[in-house]
Amino acid sequence: SKPTRIAVTPGDGIGPDVIQQSLRALDHLRQQYDLLLEWDVFEWPSTEWHRRNGDMMPADAMTRLAGYDAILLGALGDPGPSRDPHRYVLSDSVSLSPLLQMRKGFDQWVCERPAHQLKGARQYLADPRAADTDMLVIRENSEGEYVGQGGRLRQGQPGEIATQTEIFTRFATERIIRFGFERARKRAGERHETGKPRTFGNPDGEQLESQVCLITKRNALRHWGDMYTEVFAEVAKDYPDVATHHELVDAACMKFVQAPWAFDVVVASNLQGDILTDLAAVISGGLGVAPSCNLNPDDRSQPSMFEPTHGSAPDIAGQNRADPTAMLFTTARMLDWLGEERPALARAGHALYSAVAADLAEHGHEERTTDALGDAILARLGGQ
Amino acid sequence: SKPTRIAVTPGDGIGPDVIQQSLRALDHLRQQYDLLLEWDVFEWPSTEWHRRNGDMMPADAMTRLAGYDAILLGALGDPGPSRDPHRYVLSDSVSLSPLLQMRKGFDQWVCERPAHQLKGARQYLADPRAADTDMLVIRENSEGEYVGQGGRLRQGQPGEIATQTEIFTRFATERIIRFGFERARKRAGERHETGKPRTFGNPDGEQLESQVCLITKRNALRHWGDMYTEVFAEVAKDYPDVATHHELVDAACMKFVQAPWAFDVVVASNLQGDILTDLAAVISGGLGVAPSCNLNPDDRSQPSMFEPTHGSAPDIAGQNRADPTAMLFTTARMLDWLGEERPALARAGHALYSAVAADLAEHGHEERTTDALGDAILARLGGQ
Ligand SMILES: CC(C)[C@H](C(=O)O)[C@@H](O)C(=O)O
Ligand SMILES: CC(C)[C@H](C(=O)O)[C@@H](O)C(=O)O
Repeated sequence: SKPTRIAVTPGDGIGPDVIQQSLRALDHLRQQYDLLLEWDVFEWPSTEWHRRNGDMMPADAMTRLAGYDAILLGALGDPGPSRDPHRYVLSDSVSLSPLLQMRKGFDQWVCERPAHQLKGARQYLADPRAADTDMLVIRENSEGEYVGQGGRLRQGQPGEIATQTEIFTRFATERIIRFGFERARKRAGERHETGKPRTFGNPDGEQLESQVCLITKRNALRHWGDMYTEVFAEVAKDYPDVATHHELVDAACMKFVQAPWAFDVVVASNLQGDILTDLAAVISGGLGVAPSCNLNPDDRSQPSMFEPTHGSAPDIAGQNRADPTAMLFTTARMLDWLGEERPALARAGHALYSAVAADLAEHGHEERTTDALGDAILARLGGQ
Repeated sequence: SKPTRIAVTPGDGIGPDVIQQSLRALDHLRQQYDLLLEWDVFEWPSTEWHRRNGDMMPADAMTRLAGYDAILLGALGDPGPSRDPHRYVLSDSVSLSPLLQMRKGFDQWVCERPAHQLKGARQYLADPRAADTDMLVIRENSEGEYVGQGGRLRQGQPGEIATQTEIFTRFATERIIRFGFERARKRAGERHETGKPRTFGNPDGEQLESQVCLITKRNALRHWGDMYTEVFAEVAKDYPDVATHHELVDAACMKFVQAPWAFDVVVASNLQGDILTDLAAVISGGLGVAPSCNLNPDDRSQPSMFEPTHGSAPDIAGQNRADPTAMLFTTARMLDWLGEERPALARAGHALYSAVAADLAEHGHEERTTDALGDAILARLGGQ
């Protein structure tokens, strides 16, 4: 049968450092589990935009990536407008960040970010119950606030007006909400198997084994807030086994800090999801452990994309100092996703996840070289 | 001379309970400082919307409030769409929440929420440095994501599209950013006086005594993000004594959790400010202490509005159980604001703030009746 093919894009800064450990792990797992797995590496540092007339990726990048089953991305070089003077120049000449290009181009309409407080990971919250945090934040990744419709009238003049139009479709709203309910059911099943069920109260008082919390700001952004709420209520009817809950985005941010352990699956719009996934990542151990999965669940012929949420940390790049933990978790998630169709990949993903989690539980974020951490993971994987 | 006149709107749930303690304190301060201060109380519970054909306030509410110097608001009855079935009914029949109505009607274009970790307040973050958190989040309160432009096409049908247009003007952008810089300067001055200066690094390495951090999401919402960034750079030239910094909203949420003590003044758009102020409130002690000030700084003939950010907690309303701490801090803030024109009011505001802070430092959130806490504040104010 056909091999599973991965496009590896290390990107900038520490991206190549941490990706290298992923490739070592993949190579090991390939032999260990006899996987039909191949990959190609595409350097394409986005910091070379000036050689590409302002583009972050080569002109044919999307065509070349299109044939793969998944994209494994290291890190991109944009630390935000404050520290990258290039952004000021780029802002109008460059169309999109590679992340947005891939999400749009391959219709990766789900962005899924697990926020599970793992043993050994940083704990920012004082309440010891935060150790039980285990939620999955699902972000609508294809429309909404990110449609890029808008502009500037009378640019630079006193009477300037800038607009941005958010566009939400019932179609995309329904598919993301339905995806959330499916995930909730799956998580309940997994918890059942491991003998660790949880319960969540439905608004009517019933106790159920999973929950989806819908986020909106419907008291201020009413139009799509109402549509989201209505679609949510309709889809929920198909999942009587899953409890439902609503939060306004501002209240959700507070509750993420006050009681993150109370959440299960959270579904949010593109921008609100961007904010909540970052917040969820940090309260459940920080960017050092957080993977981000950009998925196209209904067209497997298009590659999904997997990236750690951390930045490119150019100051420590190439020094064998970057912590590859988040990258390795991300790699495990990718195998897990690909494994939905090929069980051997799922087994390999699970083994990698367990090895990285065990390493983290034992060592926390103690200072080790990138290589040393990679070695430790290979040793734990064993079996060769 | 003319008395300062306050419109008191207790609102719903525990609103009347906590407002009562504010009125006791105001009465006490009026005598103690010989203040020329009057108030009228307007009950107007928003939960009576069904008697008002869906309106949260009486039809002539805005006209009646217009003559006052300030509005002191208790709490409004909307705990969010999840728990208030009325919201579902109201959503299309009612134009606006009273908060939005007042902000728009009286052009309260600043929403200012101090996030100062006070002794005795809850501490959600594990890092002991969080005790030093002292920031001021300033939210653009008049436009942006909250302009209410948009609608639903093919409502309820499979092909439905919902839109929401964000509108930002250079005019409003400049005034809110300038307000932020003014506040930063004022804070630096106050710190100087109390002998507790702080320093912040400017991008060029210079160490300055205050900072304004601008929030945008300019890597995705580029048009207004660029306008904000440009206006920020221009206005900053007038404040060479204030350090500047940028954060993307998602990164800002993380940094609020990771290192909130590093911020001074933060300026954000209406929706991003809504999110960040709630988050800042919770990480600096929670809603039990957080005031929200809706200000019209350039037209003092229009009332500014002051409210605690907590909800109406209908389950404990009228039971002498609500904690009036946030309401009392809010009242102190109001006096402070009014005191910019009348020094005696500022002195009274300062006395009230000190009394409430001292009470909090001594008792934390220990269980006391609403009255007992009010008594304790009056006793601390002393002088009668
Ligand atoms: C009630 C709601 C419309 C309001 C807002 O979003 O501005 C509230 O959350 C606030 O922050 O005062
Ligand atoms: C780089 C940026 C456009 C992107 C986003 O906002 O989606 C990032 O913050 C993320 O969350 O992956």
